[in-house]
Amino acid sequence: MNIDNYIELYKNKTFESMNLYYRSKEIFPGGINHNIRFYKPYPFLTVKAKGNYLKDIDGNKYIDFWNGHWALILGHSPKTITKNLKKQIKKGTLYGTPNKPSIKLGELINKAIPNAEGIRFSTTGSEATMYAIRLARAKTGKRVIAKVIGGWHGFNSNLLQSVNYPYEADEGIGLVEDEGQFIESIQFNDLDRSLKVLESIKDDLAGIIIEPILGGAGCITPINGYLEGLQEFVKKNDSLLILDEIVTGFRLSYKAALDHYKLDPDIFTLGKIIGGGLPIGAVCGKKEIMGLADVTDKIEKNTYCSIGGGTFSANPLTMTAGYKTLKYLKKNPTVYEKINFLGDLARSELSKLFNELNIEAEITGIGSLFMIHFLNDKVKKINNALDVALSNNELLFNYNLALIAKFNIFFLPLKMGAFSYAHEKEDVYKLIEATRQIFQNTKKYNNIQR
Amino acid sequence: MNIDNYIELYKNKTFESMNLYYRSKEIFPGGINHNIRFYKPYPFLTVKAKGNYLKDIDGNKYIDFWNGHWALILGHSPKTITKNLKKQIKKGTLYGTPNKPSIKLGELINKAIPNAEGIRFSTTGSEATMYAIRLARAKTGKRVIAKVIGGWHGFNSNLLQSVNYPYEADEGIGLVEDEGQFIESIQFNDLDRSLKVLESIKDDLAGIIIEPILGGAGCITPINGYLEGLQEFVKKNDSLLILDEIVTGFRLSYKAALDHYKLDPDIFTLGKIIGGGLPIGAVCGKKEIMGLADVTDKIEKNTYCSIGGGTFSANPLTMTAGYKTLKYLKKNPTVYEKINFLGDLARSELSKLFNELNIEAEITGIGSLFMIHFLNDKVKKINNALDVALSNNELLFNYNLALIAKFNIFFLPLKMGAFSYAHEKEDVYKLIEATRQIFQNTKKYNNIQR
Repeated sequence: MNIDNYIELYKNKTFESMNLYYRSKEIFPGGINHNIRFYKPYPFLTVKAKGNYLKDIDGNKYIDFWNGHWALILGHSPKTITKNLKKQIKKGTLYGTPNKPSIKLGELINKAIPNAEGIRFSTTGSEATMYAIRLARAKTGKRVIAKVIGGWHGFNSNLLQSVNYPYEADEGIGLVEDEGQFIESIQFNDLDRSLKVLESIKDDLAGIIIEPILGGAGCITPINGYLEGLQEFVKKNDSLLILDEIVTGFRLSYKAALDHYKLDPDIFTLGKIIGGGLPIGAVCGKKEIMGLADVTDKIEKNTYCSIGGGTFSANPLTMTAGYKTLKYLKKNPTVYEKINFLGDLARSELSKLFNELNIEAEITGIGSLFMIHFLNDKVKKINNALDVALSNNELLFNYNLALIAKFNIFFLPLKMGAFSYAHEKEDVYKLIEATRQIFQNTKKYNNIQR
Repeated sequence: MNIDNYIELYKNKTFESMNLYYRSKEIFPGGINHNIRFYKPYPFLTVKAKGNYLKDIDGNKYIDFWNGHWALILGHSPKTITKNLKKQIKKGTLYGTPNKPSIKLGELINKAIPNAEGIRFSTTGSEATMYAIRLARAKTGKRVIAKVIGGWHGFNSNLLQSVNYPYEADEGIGLVEDEGQFIESIQFNDLDRSLKVLESIKDDLAGIIIEPILGGAGCITPINGYLEGLQEFVKKNDSLLILDEIVTGFRLSYKAALDHYKLDPDIFTLGKIIGGGLPIGAVCGKKEIMGLADVTDKIEKNTYCSIGGGTFSANPLTMTAGYKTLKYLKKNPTVYEKINFLGDLARSELSKLFNELNIEAEITGIGSLFMIHFLNDKVKKINNALDVALSNNELLFNYNLALIAKFNIFFLPLKMGAFSYAHEKEDVYKLIEATRQIFQNTKKYNNIQR
């Protein structure tokens, strides 16, 4: 079988999705509402999601490793959430005033992650990271923010820098030059080079914002000492450490990754999981920093840091979904046992398989997060975003599409996967078996063997 | 009765809210998750919202003119929305893939407002305005954005300029100087002065972003010729007109205010109403501009404008609520007849009353939006945000608090009010009667009479 056949297979089974994609294109630029949701030839259209699967409009049912942008740690529509959302919907979706579920969610987060001495809920992660760096600048009086090459902190103008390869080029047109002039990029997992860059800007360095596990850029864990080295640098230089935990918060354990890596960030962000499948973001941090956002007793504009909020921040629907999710996670430590076990199993079985098939691949990840990378002459090991960008992404894409087309297994092509509590061991074995068949039966893949 | 008594009255009836506010303060800076949701001595805590009312944790039931930041045109939890949300919750809250309700909502918007040739959904209005100006810069290759003094376009770093009095001061600390250097502010309703400013920056002017009705800054309608004059200027100078219709879209009629004022913006934003009470934002515009956001067939970074999206953009829950809301509005033109009638009634009855009471006040607004302003020696007429800032806001605040404390009528203090389809004529008469009693019975108010 040729790789082209998978595209044909995909088209044959997603006829209605294709029709609706062309209808979408009449309204939405590119036919989608998030750039990464597009893949060639067109993305399928989901009509139902439950537990570990997505069902498309043509009736295909996919094992879902995308999991709502990795937000749905309990899987799609778990009963504990749907039941409580239904109740809340009757009581209102948007009070526009303080409400109790927000206090309960805030208190749960604070108890689970004591670094969250203060919390401000926003509606998206992109807002949370924007507010995080605003607070860092407000606190330090400095301007420069260091970020990691390939680090993803949302679409806000402040941090839309060095996200995609080639990293030195602007992230598209329409960003004024000056939005990037106070952003400096460093290479993930290369402490020496990172410190050299940081040293050169330390006098004006407000902080470093970093995902403890590089997420969108390729599911890359930090090498020992890297994050600690950055932390040491900022503490020494009156700058701040900002951990972007939008993906990792409550993902590895009923805490944030800052606990796993024993870090003490001044500010950190949360999102995804804490919203229980509804829109959320949060900026959290030390009391004296978060206190800058308190405008209630301040009159002069130069005494506070103005951050949102927004019309939908802390709305009772999101707050209820988030609170019930965290409460469930707290009560059921088996969730983490299970999803971390599934992640370990997937990584080891995939490694074994690729070894056996004589295909050079690296499976990165930790806990329930994992991603497959195909290596080549340029890339022998995945340490940073550049390695991912230069690895064999054409093969990865074709593999992902083959999984969707023939085996009803959905990763958003080129993106990392996540296990939810709704996944089972069988899902791993199905992935392994599908992978084996794809590589054994597809002619064009043969030339990638060692 | 003295004005201080209203504060005591408020405290007496909101004891549990007070307790929870102090609990909130332990977690959230200022005890809230949106700066404007705080008012002195503390905001009450809502436990239920239905139709035209909010119920607080102490059991008080308020007529709600705040209406979820003016988003809930059908009132809180209308059956047509709750019914369909319950169904959708079972089918999933966050597919992370394209879905049908988003196409249906997009098509409805496009049909109602043909200027929306292309649409991109975001999760918040703050994101939508940020993307709007990024697109304007991408399209024109120019950098400067003109905005109105007091104009509110969300908490994004790009547009957080000249929002609060004194307008020339930075909006708090932590915004780097350069974020504001490409923003130029103009005075609402003063075409001559505005054109003079615009003329001085026209070579680098990417566009003007403006709320057709100045919303957060005081519910001020444009004088004849003002918006048209701005539009004429941008069309002549290869700049763009960006209408921020997050408040006004689908508010005056089953269209946007651009229809009411016969404008032809290149880009406009929507939010609030189109989400049916769930988080949403949208940037809409001419095909050739929105097309810049299409990255599906582009490889080089300098060929597209990178905008979100976001994890929660076009999620099926919001899309369902929005679609069902617009469909209801389309089918039931009586909604607009009713809410516009109530707005007219409130404006005329309040004017009559203040006249009778010999109190200098101006009731601004249009359709279902209205706001009371108390005038003074400095301000005899409300034309722009500065007039609102310099009007008698102390009196307005005390009046708003009295309404809450004694008469169970809720405006977010100092903010405009909105009618929803769930309001009735009785709500207007209750407001009138309460207003009469407050001013007739309160000693401290007496000295404000003419």
